[in-house]
Amino acid sequence: MKTFHITLPDEALRGSLQQKIDNLTKPKGALGRLEELALQVGLVQQTLSPTLKCPTNVLFAGDHGIADEGVSLSPKEVTWQQTCHFLQGGAGISFLCRQHGFKLKVVDAGVDHNLPYEQGIINKKVGRGTKNFLYEAAMSAEEMERCLVHGAEVVDDCFNEGCNVISFGEMGIGNTSPSSVWMSVFTDIPLEKCVGAGSGLDAPGIAHKYKVLRQAMENYRGDGSARDLIRHYGGFEMVMAIGAMLRAAELKMIILIDGFIMTACLLAASQLHPEVMAYAVFGHQGDESGHKMLLDALHAKPLLNLHLRLGEGSGAVCAYPILDSAVRMLNEMDSFQASAITKYF
Amino acid sequence: MKTFHITLPDEALRGSLQQKIDNLTKPKGALGRLEELALQVGLVQQTLSPTLKCPTNVLFAGDHGIADEGVSLSPKEVTWQQTCHFLQGGAGISFLCRQHGFKLKVVDAGVDHNLPYEQGIINKKVGRGTKNFLYEAAMSAEEMERCLVHGAEVVDDCFNEGCNVISFGEMGIGNTSPSSVWMSVFTDIPLEKCVGAGSGLDAPGIAHKYKVLRQAMENYRGDGSARDLIRHYGGFEMVMAIGAMLRAAELKMIILIDGFIMTACLLAASQLHPEVMAYAVFGHQGDESGHKMLLDALHAKPLLNLHLRLGEGSGAVCAYPILDSAVRMLNEMDSFQASAITKYF
Repeated sequence: MKTFHITLPDEALRGSLQQKIDNLTKPKGALGRLEELALQVGLVQQTLSPTLKCPTNVLFAGDHGIADEGVSLSPKEVTWQQTCHFLQGGAGISFLCRQHGFKLKVVDAGVDHNLPYEQGIINKKVGRGTKNFLYEAAMSAEEMERCLVHGAEVVDDCFNEGCNVISFGEMGIGNTSPSSVWMSVFTDIPLEKCVGAGSGLDAPGIAHKYKVLRQAMENYRGDGSARDLIRHYGGFEMVMAIGAMLRAAELKMIILIDGFIMTACLLAASQLHPEVMAYAVFGHQGDESGHKMLLDALHAKPLLNLHLRLGEGSGAVCAYPILDSAVRMLNEMDSFQASAITKYF
Repeated sequence: MKTFHITLPDEALRGSLQQKIDNLTKPKGALGRLEELALQVGLVQQTLSPTLKCPTNVLFAGDHGIADEGVSLSPKEVTWQQTCHFLQGGAGISFLCRQHGFKLKVVDAGVDHNLPYEQGIINKKVGRGTKNFLYEAAMSAEEMERCLVHGAEVVDDCFNEGCNVISFGEMGIGNTSPSSVWMSVFTDIPLEKCVGAGSGLDAPGIAHKYKVLRQAMENYRGDGSARDLIRHYGGFEMVMAIGAMLRAAELKMIILIDGFIMTACLLAASQLHPEVMAYAVFGHQGDESGHKMLLDALHAKPLLNLHLRLGEGSGAVCAYPILDSAVRMLNEMDSFQASAITKYF
């Protein structure tokens, strides 16, 4: 079984980092969230002068058996169409990655289509979509294992290319459904509050989605362990993201968390290894109705709230300049002493 | 008297812009605030393919007579010290401008010190600090006129250098005080709710500041017109920012609004010319206690809330990448038709 050894950052440096931040030429605390981020990144990297290198967005794609139950407004073929589209440059995540200097990696985790790998899509296909978890486990234990291993492999490649800050995105019609179920089973928040519009369901559509997911939860006969719940409901792209997040934390990379689905994946990852949270920076609070409650359950304060609900990693990548500002603050701002400015408040 | 002729953007293009946005490869509305910004910029520039050129942050600096009343925790000398510091590269706004590709212009609007203009600070000094508005008008009508003219001149220079998106910042120990008074007199929100900690006052400090400002408002004997209230309480750097904002709107530039003080300047500017609001993009909701209420009064939804309270234009410049994303969305994303993707929701 794939294992991860994640340690928490050594806290010994916190005092020196805080002192450095407090001596920069600004009223104490005046750079708000940038100061908190600078502390976090400094601790993760164990330095007073952290750096962000080769930022990368890894986009995992997969199809979902549960989509057959009409839980999404979007047709399933959009998964493969968009998966092919991302690397061509004209998708939402494409321009955001260009803008913010991100490398974009697109991974076929389990799309129900033969994809043109020669165009650069990374082939980690575990299957042609998951099974329908209304009736049976979405994937086998062996498939789950392959997802975790493949997710870790992709992150290893990023790390070896020099990356120390990584975001994850997803494409998978139907994947707010497993996200909602994970949220409910891992936080004990009633399912009803965890189910939302996805890519645009109306009220009757949401009611139907809720009914399907409630039935699926009633039908569940597993052992209730985190691993089993992940396997039972998860999408290939989602479980691969979990493996990727855990490996990134193991490698002490900063992990930028995207919207509802990636937050649900982090929640699931934290059920296996709570230490992963120390490496997470929450990029964006999306419009999916359960997302705010999920973030609250994780004590997470996202950097942005731009009403995005695109997925793909878009909310994480949009937040990158703020992280970059935090690091620049530590490296580029003068101290009161160096600039001969009266310390002020 | 300096006059401005600001017209509202022609709305005829709105339908075509919305149609273009709705045909990009994403669920309808899924890019949230980016879509709203794209509409605004497209209307301001009257094109389906807007561009952002030569972004510039103009930082106006000035001293305040009211600072003599102990309304700020910071010593007055910080105004000139920081004004000299900005262009040396190690201040907060310095690294943010570098990061986001902004030109930084520092303008001496009325600092109480002889500044080294040879280092690049723009000399528009109207006086060595304003008078103390607890006892008399902060500036004369002639000084106010010079502020408006100089602010417009600086923007003309930016425009002639190719700039079509501009932010304004300030440095002026004491300048949350006039901001609070303007907020109260122009919105009818009770002064008590408009007064906050500034750069770090404690509760007794805030109570003293409130008492001073309340007394100043009781002592006011002017004609109650917007121009007179601006003149009576304003700082040179603030009134210059008003002139700059009005000229920027006249030139149909996008104006990125910073925190509490610049929002108060926009509020004052909108008392003279309400049309200026159509050109404003609100960058950041700061921690100054009245700021949220002021933004609400202006029906403004800031893009960021990072608990910044630095001034200098920092909150506006930090928000720039989001504006940039909106414009890139319009120019770089494919339509459903062009990419042969099934239109989804």
